[in-house]
Amino acid sequence: MPQLYVFEIAGTAIFAITGVLVITRRGLDMFGAMVLGVVTALGGGTVRDLIIRVPVFWTNDFNYVWAGLAGALAAFWIRALFRSTYRALLYLDGLGAALFAVAAAQKVLALQMSGPIAVAMGILTGIGGGLIRDVLAGRPTLLMTREIYATPILAGCALFVLLRSYAPGFDLAGPLSAAVIFGIRAFAIHHGLEIPSWLTIQEEDKN
Amino acid sequence: MPQLYVFEIAGTAIFAITGVLVITRRGLDMFGAMVLGVVTALGGGTVRDLIIRVPVFWTNDFNYVWAGLAGALAAFWIRALFRSTYRALLYLDGLGAALFAVAAAQKVLALQMSGPIAVAMGILTGIGGGLIRDVLAGRPTLLMTREIYATPILAGCALFVLLRSYAPGFDLAGPLSAAVIFGIRAFAIHHGLEIPSWLTIQEEDKN
Amino acid sequence: MPQLYVFEIAGTAIFAITGVLVITRRGLDMFGAMVLGVVTALGGGTVRDLIIRVPVFWTNDFNYVWAGLAGALAAFWIRALFRSTYRALLYLDGLGAALFAVAAAQKVLALQMSGPIAVAMGILTGIGGGLIRDVLAGRPTLLMTREIYATPILAGCALFVLLRSYAPGFDLAGPLSAAVIFGIRAFAIHHGLEIPSWLTIQEEDKN
Repeated sequence: MPQLYVFEIAGTAIFAITGVLVITRRGLDMFGAMVLGVVTALGGGTVRDLIIRVPVFWTNDFNYVWAGLAGALAAFWIRALFRSTYRALLYLDGLGAALFAVAAAQKVLALQMSGPIAVAMGILTGIGGGLIRDVLAGRPTLLMTREIYATPILAGCALFVLLRSYAPGFDLAGPLSAAVIFGIRAFAIHHGLEIPSWLTIQEEDKN
Repeated sequence: MPQLYVFEIAGTAIFAITGVLVITRRGLDMFGAMVLGVVTALGGGTVRDLIIRVPVFWTNDFNYVWAGLAGALAAFWIRALFRSTYRALLYLDGLGAALFAVAAAQKVLALQMSGPIAVAMGILTGIGGGLIRDVLAGRPTLLMTREIYATPILAGCALFVLLRSYAPGFDLAGPLSAAVIFGIRAFAIHHGLEIPSWLTIQEEDKN
Repeated sequence: MPQLYVFEIAGTAIFAITGVLVITRRGLDMFGAMVLGVVTALGGGTVRDLIIRVPVFWTNDFNYVWAGLAGALAAFWIRALFRSTYRALLYLDGLGAALFAVAAAQKVLALQMSGPIAVAMGILTGIGGGLIRDVLAGRPTLLMTREIYATPILAGCALFVLLRSYAPGFDLAGPLSAAVIFGIRAFAIHHGLEIPSWLTIQEEDKN
């Protein structure tokens, strides 16, 4: 439980930071940044909780919102410290997605729901915040790029569900699975990897 | 019930197919396509279930997600078979919208909710998937085009509600209503019909 | 209660009007306008009710949907009466946001939920309709502009929560708070104010 709590508080602040960093290149006022950062940071977990029919996490513990506000303000004011905004953004976003995804899978399993649902909700939660952020900011969503994004979350959540099912005594399933997700993503970012072309739709028709 | 089930499984696969086909002209990797296809295919029904406060359908029966995955993968791999992607897309989308809309109206009536809510949820469900898909793919939503889209769904759902209210013994209300929706839409697509200009806002002001 | 009811019915019609007015410059048919106006008008309150886990307001009272339809149709047909569409839009949108935000905060407090949640839901409700509208219409969301938007809603909802907590006998907390929100916004619109530049992210990096 404390493990889950730390995951979600950290992920909330990180997603708020990326939610603000993403839009540094256009005019955005501080209050809009706070709203946008918080709304997008809490978006993935909120959709998850609505779907699995439990009270939305931040209505029970407003610290998530405070974390989101803190992240949004930090991103707004210390943004100049980031050398390469986009690269830092990708790492932070990948870390946030990893933390959110594993925490979500853990929450779903704790409700005695099935493994596939846990994986699905992990992916949805890990990607949901970024998708809402991109839509609200008018950017192409991360699904439309060739960045390696969905795959590591799928792999990590599946690993987490399998470990919980077949090695229930293994206490580090959560951290390990999150590390797998972030590790693959960070490796891809660092080496500039993209999805192999045979797994990518080409622009063949131009009607 | 089996009728409703077949409607929704078929509609899920179809919406996943269109969700992927829509974005063939840009780079999209296979895993992104799977996520995008499934998320958008299940989006309309998910919003419906959240609003009418019943368990989200695919959390009780994961076959909907498998159907969505199958549709997304089929669209990704056999896309080249489609001669005219856009035209096939319009037909498939219209069929999916018809199936989803009538199934949604049926589900709402089964909960003893009122006819207007059944019609509203039918429209929301029939359009919701397409709207989410368009927003995530960065396309203009279908609401912004002059294609005949909302009208047949409104007509078909209203017909379905009226038949259920005034001819409860008529067993073919569902298929008939779905056929009406798809029929109007297919007719419009085939003949290149658009909404009459007197029902369309003109671009008169250019401030 | 009647106060709350009038607030929400009026706000629903107003948001439907702005939802349609926003998109006058492109082709939009009447039925699409009805759907778009209603869906976006009810969007903010719908998300609020889902999050606080109460029945979605318009499923209990379909008058909200009728109000939305009336607003959308009025906007569609008497649009030519508006001299300056954009300016009228800003005032109407600000008024709708004020009404929705205070009504939402009142509803949350009536559920014995905490003050911060009431403020958060007020902001979410006040902004949510506009955000969904902008996303569906393919416009930059209001969060991305330098218009003063989020700030007055935050101030008004905080005022409302404080008045309810520390002056529970003051009957005009609702109207006063809504007036504060709309007053600040109307003042900003009338004087062409924008957020101060020190509170706005500049376009400094052009990588």
